Amino acid sequence: MTELERARTGEITELVRVVAAAEGIAASALRERLAIGRVVVPRNQHRPVRRPCGIGEGLRTKVNANIGTSHDYPDVALELEKLRAAVAAGADTVMDLSTGGDLPAIRRRILEESPVPVGTVPIYDAAVTAARRNARGLRDMSAADIFTALRRHCADGVDFVTLHCGVTRAVFEQLKRHPRVCGIVSRGGSFLVEWMQTHNQENPLYERYDEVLDILREHDVTISLGDGLRPGAIADAFDAAQVHELEVIAELAAQAQARGVQTIIEGPGHVPLTQIEAQVRLQKALCRGAPFYVLGPIVTDVAPGYDHITSAIGGALAAAAGADFLCYVTPSEHLALPTAEQVHEGVIAARIAAHAADIAKGINSAWEWDRKMSALRRKRDWEGQIALALDPQRARALRETRRARDPQVCSMCGEFCVFKIMDRGGL
Amino acid sequence: MTELERARTGEITELVRVVAAAEGIAASALRERLAIGRVVVPRNQHRPVRRPCGIGEGLRTKVNANIGTSHDYPDVALELEKLRAAVAAGADTVMDLSTGGDLPAIRRRILEESPVPVGTVPIYDAAVTAARRNARGLRDMSAADIFTALRRHCADGVDFVTLHCGVTRAVFEQLKRHPRVCGIVSRGGSFLVEWMQTHNQENPLYERYDEVLDILREHDVTISLGDGLRPGAIADAFDAAQVHELEVIAELAAQAQARGVQTIIEGPGHVPLTQIEAQVRLQKALCRGAPFYVLGPIVTDVAPGYDHITSAIGGALAAAAGADFLCYVTPSEHLALPTAEQVHEGVIAARIAAHAADIAKGINSAWEWDRKMSALRRKRDWEGQIALALDPQRARALRETRRARDPQVCSMCGEFCVFKIMDRGGL
Repeated sequence: MTELERARTGEITELVRVVAAAEGIAASALRERLAIGRVVVPRNQHRPVRRPCGIGEGLRTKVNANIGTSHDYPDVALELEKLRAAVAAGADTVMDLSTGGDLPAIRRRILEESPVPVGTVPIYDAAVTAARRNARGLRDMSAADIFTALRRHCADGVDFVTLHCGVTRAVFEQLKRHPRVCGIVSRGGSFLVEWMQTHNQENPLYERYDEVLDILREHDVTISLGDGLRPGAIADAFDAAQVHELEVIAELAAQAQARGVQTIIEGPGHVPLTQIEAQVRLQKALCRGAPFYVLGPIVTDVAPGYDHITSAIGGALAAAAGADFLCYVTPSEHLALPTAEQVHEGVIAARIAAHAADIAKGINSAWEWDRKMSALRRKRDWEGQIALALDPQRARALRETRRARDPQVCSMCGEFCVFKIMDRGGL
Repeated sequence: MTELERARTGEITELVRVVAAAEGIAASALRERLAIGRVVVPRNQHRPVRRPCGIGEGLRTKVNANIGTSHDYPDVALELEKLRAAVAAGADTVMDLSTGGDLPAIRRRILEESPVPVGTVPIYDAAVTAARRNARGLRDMSAADIFTALRRHCADGVDFVTLHCGVTRAVFEQLKRHPRVCGIVSRGGSFLVEWMQTHNQENPLYERYDEVLDILREHDVTISLGDGLRPGAIADAFDAAQVHELEVIAELAAQAQARGVQTIIEGPGHVPLTQIEAQVRLQKALCRGAPFYVLGPIVTDVAPGYDHITSAIGGALAAAAGADFLCYVTPSEHLALPTAEQVHEGVIAARIAAHAADIAKGINSAWEWDRKMSALRRKRDWEGQIALALDPQRARALRETRRARDPQVCSMCGEFCVFKIMDRGGL
């Protein structure tokens, strides 16, 4: 039985107990939400996760960090460094999106080292393998290549996989009828569209969805239904192709859940501020409360170099509206493969967004954290504030590089520190 | 006649013409909004501003950068460097908040050099002067000191001044009845509360408000009604003291406008995501659409070192809800006086927030910028994207430090670039 099926029988597993304790909620409440598909706890039966996490309704908003090699930077050592940076910065999960070097070896090293759940996108593996085999590149990829990659990832112990099952010919037709500024910006989506155009056939992940579910069920792997038509420009958000794909994904989500497969829905992307809440509400309604995993969203196209900030704005809003899982965006997005330092920046920015949203969601532990920090601030307890800061090292560095002569204050206000003044007035 | 009085007579001044052209709106529309107090164009009659700007309804959201010396860093050269960094990064206005060194000399240097409108907080000057004169420190400050400072700043050519006229004894009583986690975090507010406690008298900026308005009217200086009781902790937002002060400020705003003095309202501060829209709507309703100038707001207390990001989240939301003017927050906030580099980071983060909000506000030029950027992205026009980026230098640096071998793509996706794939498919 899968974790989802066990939850349905009423069983409270050890995994549910551990995750509920970490969230400070009753295990029975977590089990119920898991059973009805409003929460997932990604886990592959072949690999115990040292730091599992729950994602979904009523839980702390989670943060994912994408790592992985590329053609130009195929070195696994750099990616292991990023894995450590991501986990140290507080990422709840990581995804290995490698497309360069020895993909199976890299995946296994990341799975061995990662204390948190690991996700992958098997079609990247299938496409890279096909491209290496044949000069026609990824157009040579076969449906069998895709299924082989999926089986291998599941057998290796991957906890969740992104599969763009909703990129159908009908969805693609919508895109052609209503052209976009930026077209398709999902790599998996673009691979499948090219495959459908080349072979003049339906997306095998859609056509053979039962087989997909069989494989996932066998290894108890969570499906993350990828949005291959997510908008990649503010102007493209909420168009016919995006919405049509979401409708297809909602159907597929119900089928996966019915088969005992835990299910996450992926979302955009580039979205103007005014649409973010509506995007989340539509997903939650169509997908009957299934966990929503958004990439950003980023709220403007014009700030390459700062997309950790554009996505922190969108992510905070999305999560406050009900999104459950934020995929970080690093400052390198749209420009280059990130470094470990940029991975750190990306995770911290996404955690800020997630935490700001958790305050909005009324999560008790989130309010408590802020209240404690503010009480320390009022007391001018600098060491206490630094220790409690989201990134203590950074807080310390900024304070220490521009010290005040009086250690009780900071170099901005000095003797005119409001808290000193209030102390004098007995306030 | 002041700029506001001229607008009321129907006159379209050169200043109105220049600002309207920069916004891409009709000069007559700008004049109308100015006349009814929904827009301000800060200007002191003694100093022409090379790059004036309008702040308020229907205009691009503006960004202010606070600079200024402190007791520990009194060097004017550092502040002139920050002024240049702020203007280069795109700040629309700056405020000189100096409290260290030769305050009049620093103020005049900044006024000479700044191409953008300059604001100050005269009570800082009064408090520092009093503290230097007497061992009792700022408790020795007299009402005359405050008015002398205000007159000097106006005569020196300052375009707008923050005055905490709404920090009354009644407001302070509210604070005592409903204690806060962080009490008062506005320096000006804390000075006035200490003054009221020491002297057992009403706030002179409130009691002698007519005199304040006479001075401002004489030099045609815009008043920015400071929120001395702004919340400095998430838990303190929207409490009795904050709301009572806003009511007082709304009355004072009407009086200022009636006297021909352009008026801005200042707002919080530390505010949870869920309250931001309501904070803006309340201000807009109470103050009959007067321009709203918010500090942040920052959406969590726990991220010192990253308050440019916590404030970008809050600022974007506030401006999307109608706030007109964002005061930046630098990464050093709550820790130290910022460096020029941190000033740059702060201005960029605030500009991202302002721009994301301008898209939400439906400002045409904001949509156009994003559309152009996305079209260049689709074409893989890297030089074009960098040139159009909000911070071209940063975008270039990130791209160039991790180059792809193929100059047509980036080092993240390489040959699997979605745009290359779409080009092959004729999409």
